[in-house]
Amino acid sequence: MLGAMKLVALLNGPDRPGLVAKFSGWIYEHGGNIIHADQHRDDEEGIFFQRIEWEPTADHPTAREDFAEFATAETQMAVTVRPVGASMPVALLVSKQDHCFHDLVLRWRSGEYPATIPFIVSNHEVLREAAEGYGIPFHHIPVTPATKQEAETRLLELARAHGVELMVMARYMQILSDDFFEQTDIPVINVHHSFLPAFAGAKPYHQAHRRGVKLIGATAHYATAELDAGPIIAQEVSRITHRHGVADLVRRGQDLEKLVISQAVRWHLENRILIYRNKTVIFD
Amino acid sequence: MLGAMKLVALLNGPDRPGLVAKFSGWIYEHGGNIIHADQHRDDEEGIFFQRIEWEPTADHPTAREDFAEFATAETQMAVTVRPVGASMPVALLVSKQDHCFHDLVLRWRSGEYPATIPFIVSNHEVLREAAEGYGIPFHHIPVTPATKQEAETRLLELARAHGVELMVMARYMQILSDDFFEQTDIPVINVHHSFLPAFAGAKPYHQAHRRGVKLIGATAHYATAELDAGPIIAQEVSRITHRHGVADLVRRGQDLEKLVISQAVRWHLENRILIYRNKTVIFD
Amino acid sequence: MLGAMKLVALLNGPDRPGLVAKFSGWIYEHGGNIIHADQHRDDEEGIFFQRIEWEPTADHPTAREDFAEFATAETQMAVTVRPVGASMPVALLVSKQDHCFHDLVLRWRSGEYPATIPFIVSNHEVLREAAEGYGIPFHHIPVTPATKQEAETRLLELARAHGVELMVMARYMQILSDDFFEQTDIPVINVHHSFLPAFAGAKPYHQAHRRGVKLIGATAHYATAELDAGPIIAQEVSRITHRHGVADLVRRGQDLEKLVISQAVRWHLENRILIYRNKTVIFD
Amino acid sequence: MLGAMKLVALLNGPDRPGLVAKFSGWIYEHGGNIIHADQHRDDEEGIFFQRIEWEPTADHPTAREDFAEFATAETQMAVTVRPVGASMPVALLVSKQDHCFHDLVLRWRSGEYPATIPFIVSNHEVLREAAEGYGIPFHHIPVTPATKQEAETRLLELARAHGVELMVMARYMQILSDDFFEQTDIPVINVHHSFLPAFAGAKPYHQAHRRGVKLIGATAHYATAELDAGPIIAQEVSRITHRHGVADLVRRGQDLEKLVISQAVRWHLENRILIYRNKTVIFD
Repeated sequence: MLGAMKLVALLNGPDRPGLVAKFSGWIYEHGGNIIHADQHRDDEEGIFFQRIEWEPTADHPTAREDFAEFATAETQMAVTVRPVGASMPVALLVSKQDHCFHDLVLRWRSGEYPATIPFIVSNHEVLREAAEGYGIPFHHIPVTPATKQEAETRLLELARAHGVELMVMARYMQILSDDFFEQTDIPVINVHHSFLPAFAGAKPYHQAHRRGVKLIGATAHYATAELDAGPIIAQEVSRITHRHGVADLVRRGQDLEKLVISQAVRWHLENRILIYRNKTVIFD
Repeated sequence: MLGAMKLVALLNGPDRPGLVAKFSGWIYEHGGNIIHADQHRDDEEGIFFQRIEWEPTADHPTAREDFAEFATAETQMAVTVRPVGASMPVALLVSKQDHCFHDLVLRWRSGEYPATIPFIVSNHEVLREAAEGYGIPFHHIPVTPATKQEAETRLLELARAHGVELMVMARYMQILSDDFFEQTDIPVINVHHSFLPAFAGAKPYHQAHRRGVKLIGATAHYATAELDAGPIIAQEVSRITHRHGVADLVRRGQDLEKLVISQAVRWHLENRILIYRNKTVIFD
Repeated sequence: MLGAMKLVALLNGPDRPGLVAKFSGWIYEHGGNIIHADQHRDDEEGIFFQRIEWEPTADHPTAREDFAEFATAETQMAVTVRPVGASMPVALLVSKQDHCFHDLVLRWRSGEYPATIPFIVSNHEVLREAAEGYGIPFHHIPVTPATKQEAETRLLELARAHGVELMVMARYMQILSDDFFEQTDIPVINVHHSFLPAFAGAKPYHQAHRRGVKLIGATAHYATAELDAGPIIAQEVSRITHRHGVADLVRRGQDLEKLVISQAVRWHLENRILIYRNKTVIFD
Repeated sequence: MLGAMKLVALLNGPDRPGLVAKFSGWIYEHGGNIIHADQHRDDEEGIFFQRIEWEPTADHPTAREDFAEFATAETQMAVTVRPVGASMPVALLVSKQDHCFHDLVLRWRSGEYPATIPFIVSNHEVLREAAEGYGIPFHHIPVTPATKQEAETRLLELARAHGVELMVMARYMQILSDDFFEQTDIPVINVHHSFLPAFAGAKPYHQAHRRGVKLIGATAHYATAELDAGPIIAQEVSRITHRHGVADLVRRGQDLEKLVISQAVRWHLENRILIYRNKTVIFD
């Protein structure tokens, strides 16, 4: 059943005439059939983005490598090609709060995510029992100012040992250091409990309550060395009134956090996200 | 500055391998540059949809006709090609309520719509002064059961005389007959003040109030011979509570009506909508 | 610390002058302090609704009974009085799908609900392990046309034996009979995977997909003998496009189902809902 | 038909036991009938807020003054009492953009607002014809750094001469000075084209586009001497994608601006807003 395999390519680079024709032409000439093809052009930057999902012919088992080679050689674009639905190893980082943790793991167990979860890392022991109840190895890596560097090194070693391709900070209450991001290209999805860029930093629900906003939000983004300033993936808001105290904001916000982080993880696993200039293009 | 002209093609028909390559290849070979290209495949029906926006080379003034001929001959797909931003003649149909009427005309006057409004038709005199104040010819065509057929004929004559390509029922409180739709292919956009298919028919806000729903809605759709059952274009909802009486629902609903009808008209004028099987594909 | 106890009263009945003064006056005269007081008047029906939350003085341990007696005797209104935050025994009914089940149980475990869950009933064995993993007794009561009456009797016996005050159909795929509702006054919250009254009945996501709506919804309501026609408590919607197939609608809909059912259960447990004329008044 | 008059009181001040009983008791004793009564208690600040709408008996023509006197004398609360539906003189401030201007005036003309509009002030001549077309006196008051103080003085003189009780900045592109706010207590509603506090200041749509947010918003608030930092009244958001350029954000944002400013003005005219600690309590 090799023929039933589908591939998905993500491409981006300087725009020039004929790019759509070039890629679709190659696929057609090699017996493939395009299922979806989205493209976008950033007019200001002159950058071209494309996502192509196609079914190569069964006679062409090296379609993945061949397309990548062709696209790189012919156009100098950045290109990644992956089999559709291929399982991606994902590491979860948690602290004590469990709402995003349970939500993500339950979605994964219900088959919603093409992923494996080789391990969970936490700076606390609190969620060990829950993690192991789900059958997922749990590593307690405490973090103090003195041990932070060592803890990040240990996390990266684990990630590399398991071939992790995505890390998800499911309310992991630690800030990853500049060093960390210099040592790895593994993308890291984080969730912030505000409608960024409003209320970046600590205690956003308290900030929101004090400012008297009428909507609260949550934001999933790729973590970068600059806190809460990485490329935004998904945002949701919920209406509040003067009747809602900080505790209500926290509770309602947790529902938003679950929605945005689960959405962001899904889009990433489905190879729908391209990053550039600290922004995201999402082909949904 | 002919070279700055852009074209937009809408295509749909049975899917088969190579369609994306075929169309993008033709454009590239004729010196054109694709700006946007969206496509969609209905897996159940095996239908392929595409919207391509491109800039033909200045050397190719017949690109519009040539592409249409090529696409039809080569693929037997339904195809329309139009210059981007070309002005479309639009007729407004109104009765007594003026919120959608003012909203649409003000958007048009502010340059939001690539359109002309050659005339407004109403079954009442109420909005004559407002229409003429905007400098738009106003035709009063009363409708009674006895004169309905004659009134529709008059409307169609006016539409044809002015080359109307779209009619918009801006709270026009008449039902167009089967005969009407048999005599013309001019698309008609209507707005219904409910979240269809809930509360189809008369007095939807009263129905919603009686049922005790917690959200009210509005729906813009293409009118067909079957009342409130045509292809849906845009829908919006607004939260309500037990404190809202029917009058509140009407007032809040009017804001939703303006939003969905103005959105639907914009998408239509920008050639973003394909209709099939009583549904719409919207390339936004 | 008896003095720190708070009471909440829900009242409704024919409106007449002085009701607010009467209830607030009684509380003040008996040394109590009102924390929140919401009232609503249905102008069409002439019905008055009130929710009062107050802190009786520590010297008045019978405030709950005394207020109920006073309100009933003086005004002939329907009245219930409960301690704020008092734990309510809730029975969960499930079938095979587990998203609402996990969501409700996890919220309960995190302390979000003032409730106990004395047991879970299912017409399938599928969720036994998960239920028992949470430490909640699980009863498998199969339902066939022949055994339906017996199954409902068994459910009611369990409910009475545990003093259940609320049943929650967390995607329980059975219709409770007229007989059932005649035998009990225990309220039953159900979730329907559509924006009721649109797409009532079976397979609503398929109906929605066929109709080509642009928003899908979910509705939590009190189950009654008439299927999907009971008083609506909470509704949410989510935007969809032509790109979403039925499977996508199901997945996105499950998030809406969790939101509306968890919200409805919270409002019920916080004594915020009054029912009348097949509608709800929710003092949020 | 004096008996059909209704009054609405807004009260706020330090909470203490018996306030609800005191006010509702007074109304009952004076033959009045409460239609709506909302109250709120800010637990952190210990402040009590109440809005009461009632129908005094026809025998009590001084109910308005008497209640205000009673409430002030007995409780030292801040209190305002107004007849429900009484027309409030509102001044509109505009510059060149007309979407909020038309929207507000059309709502007013359709009877949605209990208000008069004695005049419109603008720092440009652009909207004179439109204003006068609506029959509203138009005053052109140019503003330069050199004439700013003089212009504000002229505006205040006009406002006082016409008994203006509310000013609405309908995209008035000037910042009112500290001096202005020191000289007057007339409330000023402004609209900002972002989801405040995100993107305060100039060119918020450009800021939003650069940051790559997935939702844009608009905020209606009471203007204060500190730019974009006054009490928030209403906020709305709209979903955007990478396909939307700055021009799309502007266009979609204008719909949000109309929604929030029209909502804020309605709430103000219906005496539903209480301000404290730079926040609003809205009894909707």
